[in-house]
Amino acid sequence: MDDLTGRVRAFAEERDWQQFHTPKNLAMALAGEVGELIAEFQWLTPEQSAAVMADPDAGSRVRAEIGDVMIYLTRLADVLGIDLVETALTKLEDSARRYPIEQARGSAAKR
Amino acid sequence: MDDLTGRVRAFAEERDWQQFHTPKNLAMALAGEVGELIAEFQWLTPEQSAAVMADPDAGSRVRAEIGDVMIYLTRLADVLGIDLVETALTKLEDSARRYPIEQARGSAAKR
Amino acid sequence: MDDLTGRVRAFAEERDWQQFHTPKNLAMALAGEVGELIAEFQWLTPEQSAAVMADPDAGSRVRAEIGDVMIYLTRLADVLGIDLVETALTKLEDSARRYPIEQARGSAAKR
Amino acid sequence: MDDLTGRVRAFAEERDWQQFHTPKNLAMALAGEVGELIAEFQWLTPEQSAAVMADPDAGSRVRAEIGDVMIYLTRLADVLGIDLVETALTKLEDSARRYPIEQARGSAAKR
Repeated sequence: MDDLTGRVRAFAEERDWQQFHTPKNLAMALAGEVGELIAEFQWLTPEQSAAVMADPDAGSRVRAEIGDVMIYLTRLADVLGIDLVETALTKLEDSARRYPIEQARGSAAKR
Repeated sequence: MDDLTGRVRAFAEERDWQQFHTPKNLAMALAGEVGELIAEFQWLTPEQSAAVMADPDAGSRVRAEIGDVMIYLTRLADVLGIDLVETALTKLEDSARRYPIEQARGSAAKR
Repeated sequence: MDDLTGRVRAFAEERDWQQFHTPKNLAMALAGEVGELIAEFQWLTPEQSAAVMADPDAGSRVRAEIGDVMIYLTRLADVLGIDLVETALTKLEDSARRYPIEQARGSAAKR
Repeated sequence: MDDLTGRVRAFAEERDWQQFHTPKNLAMALAGEVGELIAEFQWLTPEQSAAVMADPDAGSRVRAEIGDVMIYLTRLADVLGIDLVETALTKLEDSARRYPIEQARGSAAKR
């Protein structure tokens, strides 16, 4: 993960793209890539979506979009000085308190 | 990163939420969280967005949203059988070929 | 529709919010609202989503989100000098040419 | 607006696409189109975004994306039985109460 952060940063700096990489712009780029990812799933049934990686074409598009989303999320976190994995772990602990296992089991209510 | 993947998976399984976690639904949840993240930046100038972490309230909201985005992205990749870091590195190499340093330097054109 | 455009414009001008209403910021606000809308549907089955308006709570949340999305889309189009209905009709004619009825019937392929 | 709703509906029915047009799927399609729209603005400065329609290429892409967003929003509202303009007007009245002119003037706080 640290290696990825460093490589994404080097990629941007080599191209002198830091000027474009404000948090605002990177959040937009992230949203744009998530839009492309969601488009891959929009007409699929839940079952088809679960089998998407078995289709070589769709699977490779999904993989590429996931890669793009991760790149922009990594870059955004780096620019903000946020440790992505640590922040996700902290948030997961918060969620564990908000959704105690006994009450939350099997329910999608108000997540 | 592997630890995060495992913990997110355990979090879902303990609550019997696998039934909701189709790739289609997780892509939607990811998009919903990215929508909350982008809302934090929508009225900020580029300069204000660059300083967002210096504001304790906004900074902590941004951190929480980044955490949520990372959690759903990790879960989606796990359900799809995709290695998030490896896939991002592969995509970054593709991008390096598509945007050679000399031509891409300083230009936002058609990225 | 013209009435809506005028009222949304007046709403912004009375609050001196034109300064925030660049197309860039409005596109972000639109994306944020669409994120809230999509969150209403993320854990629903296709069947549950089709019946969402029969649930008073969920139905009223969906209605409010649709309203917000329409407000920002109307404002964005106004700021850009675009006629929303006319532009949609023109785009629909393009789509009719790209997806001839005979070939497109019943197929979600590459829409 | 009623004409647009009817034409979008006919477009879908002629192609037998009602089967794909659940509210869930249409919300995803809307999010995908908004992602394409936001991508048009992501690297622009606020000033460049305000002048985007003066650029023939970018302007025509923005117009096309706005058209797509409006088409899916119209279709989603139709499938849900929601009157788009009326719902936006109602929501605007709510917002007028939540953001009284005197307090809200010139402030982007917590919108």
